Amino acid sequence: MFIRIPVDLTLVHFLIEVLATLAFALSGLLEAARKKLDAVGVVVVAGLAAFGGGTMRDILLDRRPFFWMQHASWLWALLALCFVAMLFLRARHFEVTERAMLWPDAIGLGLFSASGARIALDMDMPAIVAVVMGVVTAVFGGVLRDIVCNEIPRAFRDHRPYAICAFLGAWILVVAPRLGASDEVALIAAAAAITSLRGIALISGYQLPAWNSDHRNDQ
Amino acid sequence: MFIRIPVDLTLVHFLIEVLATLAFALSGLLEAARKKLDAVGVVVVAGLAAFGGGTMRDILLDRRPFFWMQHASWLWALLALCFVAMLFLRARHFEVTERAMLWPDAIGLGLFSASGARIALDMDMPAIVAVVMGVVTAVFGGVLRDIVCNEIPRAFRDHRPYAICAFLGAWILVVAPRLGASDEVALIAAAAAITSLRGIALISGYQLPAWNSDHRNDQ
Amino acid sequence: MFIRIPVDLTLVHFLIEVLATLAFALSGLLEAARKKLDAVGVVVVAGLAAFGGGTMRDILLDRRPFFWMQHASWLWALLALCFVAMLFLRARHFEVTERAMLWPDAIGLGLFSASGARIALDMDMPAIVAVVMGVVTAVFGGVLRDIVCNEIPRAFRDHRPYAICAFLGAWILVVAPRLGASDEVALIAAAAAITSLRGIALISGYQLPAWNSDHRNDQ
Repeated sequence: MFIRIPVDLTLVHFLIEVLATLAFALSGLLEAARKKLDAVGVVVVAGLAAFGGGTMRDILLDRRPFFWMQHASWLWALLALCFVAMLFLRARHFEVTERAMLWPDAIGLGLFSASGARIALDMDMPAIVAVVMGVVTAVFGGVLRDIVCNEIPRAFRDHRPYAICAFLGAWILVVAPRLGASDEVALIAAAAAITSLRGIALISGYQLPAWNSDHRNDQ
Repeated sequence: MFIRIPVDLTLVHFLIEVLATLAFALSGLLEAARKKLDAVGVVVVAGLAAFGGGTMRDILLDRRPFFWMQHASWLWALLALCFVAMLFLRARHFEVTERAMLWPDAIGLGLFSASGARIALDMDMPAIVAVVMGVVTAVFGGVLRDIVCNEIPRAFRDHRPYAICAFLGAWILVVAPRLGASDEVALIAAAAAITSLRGIALISGYQLPAWNSDHRNDQ
Repeated sequence: MFIRIPVDLTLVHFLIEVLATLAFALSGLLEAARKKLDAVGVVVVAGLAAFGGGTMRDILLDRRPFFWMQHASWLWALLALCFVAMLFLRARHFEVTERAMLWPDAIGLGLFSASGARIALDMDMPAIVAVVMGVVTAVFGGVLRDIVCNEIPRAFRDHRPYAICAFLGAWILVVAPRLGASDEVALIAAAAAITSLRGIALISGYQLPAWNSDHRNDQ
């Protein structure tokens, strides 16, 4: 009992992380399939979606080695996932898969933003930089996925709160410890807040205000 | 008097830098607005245009921390600028804003190319590498802006001298000290030469020669 | 005699490397010309195609200085090549040039994949990471070239084995030394295998299997 609880917590955390990374990788897989990329494109775009955000954060913060270099089994898992997906994923399941992935993706948004900001805070970055690094961690995988697929990144144009949820919630990591919360509690609270904000946005269908200029058809 | 002149010079230099960065950020803002990006896209594209060139130079030269990480108030200023711009900038002012920004942009081209090349020279890079780093500093913000907005970068296709002004003028940094000029004089001369070259190009409407193949309509 | 053989080998190796880099740069030149880029775009796209893959590998592995920073004469050679090409390359020669470059390009694929993977292995990276770094070295120049030219990278969508040849052949670097081969022999064998695989793919016209979903016209 004494030992089992922490082990289980680690296991739960690990499973959440795997599920969230899977959601990110699948978003890349689906985009690659929609664009009719070949097997190489599928693996690269899925890999960018899954690992691109954390890698970009690490390049900006000058941290090495990258997660996927240190734990190379993630690369094998990515290859296996893409292989299985290319065999079994049918076009008619695209919408279903995408909708089923919205919640794991929201969990990933919370988890990766919070842990990304935590890493930057541990490197004594200013609060705003740490919050931005959290957003980069969670959002830039999708951004790279869309750039390679020759699209304007969805996170920049669909007027659905996504990066903004991460930006707002990550401030809990900065504020909560000053109010006496432990770093662990702040991390969990930030991740939960971000995922909840994203969930509320998904359920309510809220949209970000459009540009004042949107009524003009200048392009 | 003894003290005031350097203080004023620093202030002038600081104001020029702010104005030039503002011009770069506004170029991102306008592009994002034209593409109907949402608030997240506006901030990211404006940020890339303003800070992307210097960040790319620092990644290539392996310099840390980045300017915007060390002086986090720049990030707050960017957020404030985007917030105000989204409230007030109207579509009908786009062309006016763009034209009004051409000269601050030319000043930024000179300032950032010269200082970028100077940084590389201080790291004992070969002359050609330093000159290229100067060009990267001034030009790659706009390149990243255009790539994210799913356009071929304007700097690579509009046949107007822009990067070439930076490339030519930055050689003053290499040559002038060998002719006896101090590094400070060389820096100011290079920045002024680059801005002047760009200004002449703007006023004269000079265009780079097109490809010999341009008469063929093969795409 | 004792001395001449190694000297000649170095010379041969150097000439192969120059030829392969030339093939990569020319692929960028042709793409830039097709897109009607100006002189700046031509130089940047040719440079990305030639040096982008090795630079990306070095950023990921945190190696400095880059090849083209240490040996700045490569930058001068690039400028000279682009200058000559813009004067002499005619549109009617595009297809000829592209076809003539397929074999030097295949040699470059083998050479740069094998040497890129070797560099990662020397840094004690896991085997799969080293193999991926080999692929990145040889393939990401073309990927960056296509992204800047606003295309989905050809390596991800043309269903011709290219990156896959590099991926498969680079494993020889990992396996051969365990079977008793020297690192030098393994390097040459890997490069030869990759180039041969690519050559077989070119001659046979083999295509990667398409997505199961390809029959659906959902985009």
